[in-house]
Amino acid sequence: MELVTIDDIRAAAERIEGAVVRTPLLPAPWAASDRPLWLKPESLQPIGAFKLRGAYNAIARLDERLRRRGVVTYSSGNHAQAVAYAARAFGVEATIVMPEVTPQVKIDNTREYGAEVVLVPIGQREAAANEIVADRGAVLVPPFDHPDVIAGQGTIGAEIAADLAGVDVVLVPVSGGGLASGIGTAVKALCPGAKVIAVEPELAADTVESLRTGALVDWPVQRRARTIADGLRSQPSELTFAHLRQVLDGITTVSEEQIRSAMAVLARKARLVAEPSGAVALAAYLYRADELPAGRTVAVISGGNVDPELLADVLAGRA
Amino acid sequence: MELVTIDDIRAAAERIEGAVVRTPLLPAPWAASDRPLWLKPESLQPIGAFKLRGAYNAIARLDERLRRRGVVTYSSGNHAQAVAYAARAFGVEATIVMPEVTPQVKIDNTREYGAEVVLVPIGQREAAANEIVADRGAVLVPPFDHPDVIAGQGTIGAEIAADLAGVDVVLVPVSGGGLASGIGTAVKALCPGAKVIAVEPELAADTVESLRTGALVDWPVQRRARTIADGLRSQPSELTFAHLRQVLDGITTVSEEQIRSAMAVLARKARLVAEPSGAVALAAYLYRADELPAGRTVAVISGGNVDPELLADVLAGRA
Repeated sequence: MELVTIDDIRAAAERIEGAVVRTPLLPAPWAASDRPLWLKPESLQPIGAFKLRGAYNAIARLDERLRRRGVVTYSSGNHAQAVAYAARAFGVEATIVMPEVTPQVKIDNTREYGAEVVLVPIGQREAAANEIVADRGAVLVPPFDHPDVIAGQGTIGAEIAADLAGVDVVLVPVSGGGLASGIGTAVKALCPGAKVIAVEPELAADTVESLRTGALVDWPVQRRARTIADGLRSQPSELTFAHLRQVLDGITTVSEEQIRSAMAVLARKARLVAEPSGAVALAAYLYRADELPAGRTVAVISGGNVDPELLADVLAGRA
Repeated sequence: MELVTIDDIRAAAERIEGAVVRTPLLPAPWAASDRPLWLKPESLQPIGAFKLRGAYNAIARLDERLRRRGVVTYSSGNHAQAVAYAARAFGVEATIVMPEVTPQVKIDNTREYGAEVVLVPIGQREAAANEIVADRGAVLVPPFDHPDVIAGQGTIGAEIAADLAGVDVVLVPVSGGGLASGIGTAVKALCPGAKVIAVEPELAADTVESLRTGALVDWPVQRRARTIADGLRSQPSELTFAHLRQVLDGITTVSEEQIRSAMAVLARKARLVAEPSGAVALAAYLYRADELPAGRTVAVISGGNVDPELLADVLAGRA
């Protein structure tokens, strides 16, 4: 299987420049002095999550004639908004297939970027998206299972390496694996001494099991859906799993309580609104230090699209 | 009176590079399409506010022998933490004079950066600070009434000009006036066509009155203390007022309710934790559009040091 290379990531970085926020590395003076910490706040992207990088790169890579037929994806989360936003930037139509049970606010957010939302019974998302592809000749932009998407997410790793060449540890959330595959590929190429550690919720730890057994396991969606981290309920594809085996130095898990606590720390001490999925890397830094390598650490804060009531509860110590 | 120049600001930018976060301009796709909006999130500085720029520049400018005697300031707010943090970066002692009534959390935050905190009866802060200066030969770093402090804050304006050369409107909070003086000086020099508009809480609108009458008015501290925007309860000095008269194109005010509402919008839509003072520029953009020039607008989010309970209340619509 052909893996994404640092050259793919460098090319992606050129493509997305100006369309995506070049997020800073934020020093965290409140962190442990023997493990200095920086945050990479992808929550500050215009759609509130890193997903814009991969979606934009994938759409930018399309042949102009093909792109004009429009793009399609199936997602109810951050990838839906990423594809809608990126498609608008290129002036092409986006169709997003979502389950009928999707909260209205997510449907509205996606429509705000001019995308057409198609609601289908849960479990029929992929089939419905493929049907639209076949009918209209539109192009599918998958949430993680595509080299251009992985290369786009990898630009985060290239930015980390550029801003902190002496980084020792990079903590990155893992679910479908596009983010961890891309960042890991960039960091291993540019800072070979740095360790890349994936972080997964205990309640959706399929990747831990897959890496331990050396083969992809399949957890039922209901089992993965137990975690509050709604962005981390997917599992790797063959493509991302091949990357993860190559680039990860380790993987650790965090509890639901640790995720909530890290959300509160991000708001109080780093002045960042993070969604539960966006807080797992900091949760690992704070509560799994015994499992992590020492040294200068970067925690990737992957997104900030959180229900305001949940954030209020976390801040008030009620959740 | 000699005013700060763009050359002073350029020199400050070189001095603070690497010690201060180069904050990005964040596009706000949820803003009005005829008035595109970008946020300049100074809340992401390590101490949670822009104050680090001026304090760091002022300390960097000191003669090395003088600097070794230590620095002193009087503040219970973001400037206290800025001086403490910057002094530690230079390896010199910082003494911060605070009123005895200062909340413990602010005292603790300042001590965390290694500063000595001296508590005095309210109203004796300046006298106590001047006594320490006289006794120890330490150097006073005032919160806004100093050219080096103004030049440091001005680096924000230079960054805005570099990142968005076609900016039409810059909205900036005003209180002591260091931030507005610095940003205004930079923007007027680098983007002469752009309008710089200051924003003040209605309940602490002394600067509005001073600019209208052409002379500094003096509102009693109790009157200015009515606003929730605890960072905007100072009033300009002769030095900052001279700058404001030169560089501002206008000034507008916002209500307490508008400030709270803008805080909620920043958390929900921009994933930023802002303190009340940090939200006034966005409040003006959202609720005083009729008083503002049209075009590409930047709102400076000056800080994010907010009581978590207040933020939770604002998010839940309780405040």
